[in-house]
Amino acid sequence: MKYPSNIKKNYKKPITYGNRGMDLEFLINEACKYYIENNLAIIYKKPTPIGIVEVDYNNMEIKKAYFKEPSTLDYNGIYKGKYVEFDAKECHSKTSFPLQNIHDHQIKHIKNIIVHGGIAFLIIGMNEKYFLFKGEDLLNFIKNTARKSIPYNIIKSKGQELKFNYLKGIDFLEGINIVYEELIK
Amino acid sequence: MKYPSNIKKNYKKPITYGNRGMDLEFLINEACKYYIENNLAIIYKKPTPIGIVEVDYNNMEIKKAYFKEPSTLDYNGIYKGKYVEFDAKECHSKTSFPLQNIHDHQIKHIKNIIVHGGIAFLIIGMNEKYFLFKGEDLLNFIKNTARKSIPYNIIKSKGQELKFNYLKGIDFLEGINIVYEELIK
Repeated sequence: MKYPSNIKKNYKKPITYGNRGMDLEFLINEACKYYIENNLAIIYKKPTPIGIVEVDYNNMEIKKAYFKEPSTLDYNGIYKGKYVEFDAKECHSKTSFPLQNIHDHQIKHIKNIIVHGGIAFLIIGMNEKYFLFKGEDLLNFIKNTARKSIPYNIIKSKGQELKFNYLKGIDFLEGINIVYEELIK
Repeated sequence: MKYPSNIKKNYKKPITYGNRGMDLEFLINEACKYYIENNLAIIYKKPTPIGIVEVDYNNMEIKKAYFKEPSTLDYNGIYKGKYVEFDAKECHSKTSFPLQNIHDHQIKHIKNIIVHGGIAFLIIGMNEKYFLFKGEDLLNFIKNTARKSIPYNIIKSKGQELKFNYLKGIDFLEGINIVYEELIK
């Protein structure tokens, strides 16, 4: 099973915090912080869904729980009044992004967000680059091909490359703004 | 400390599930399900924020964790493209709603959502009635009075009463729509 990324973070933090500078989720969280502090957007990572089995109510400590599979995307929030939701995916293949990275109910969720006039996308980390890949492009790809993965050249051509910035982490807001402008056209 | 409501639910469920028919959170979750199934809105309860201390990676079981204090509201989602976020509060006093039910960072968050053009409110369960109380009215009350609680007559006059419906639970979408119409005016 895939480790929920923020657990991995909790788990790694004490050991390799320094190395996490290049971790996609870390860089997106830095950007979210920057956007909130500078009042540009309000975007948060959702807490990892947890099923709680046992709680010690004397000290409110959780003694037993398990990870639930997310049916939505990891981040959501608001930009210029619009609803925004996205997921961050690190891709280790240099040639293509495996669609198995996205659950079917997440695909359905992306479709719903778009139907309701929201902004949905993936941020894909691949070949040391970062791309905002629109939900619409993802759905079209799935609809129009039988392929199990998205070739890198499609991600590069359809996606918007996001710049790394030491102050902001991965600055994805400009990418959102492009989707926003298309949406309000 | 206040028990996170969905934990309380996990805890109670096996014992008093039947009684939970009147539980505010349960009735709101029913409405959310109805709205998603009928493609009217996409609103979810956020997972309770948990700090994970210890995980058994052999079976991915969480052995030790604690509840974090939420800095946002419990529910968020999308309605007609707009960002929506709200919290559900059951009030046991018949005369007034204590503001200590809402943390300062939640107030700040409500302010931010409104600044960014979103829809933020509370659903208050009080005197066996349910009211949608707008974030704007909450912020105005806090700004203009020194009172530590909102009198019931203000909740009744400013708030929109929400109807209970056996199919939908507490039908709050009409209330959201009124806020939405004001927003796009």
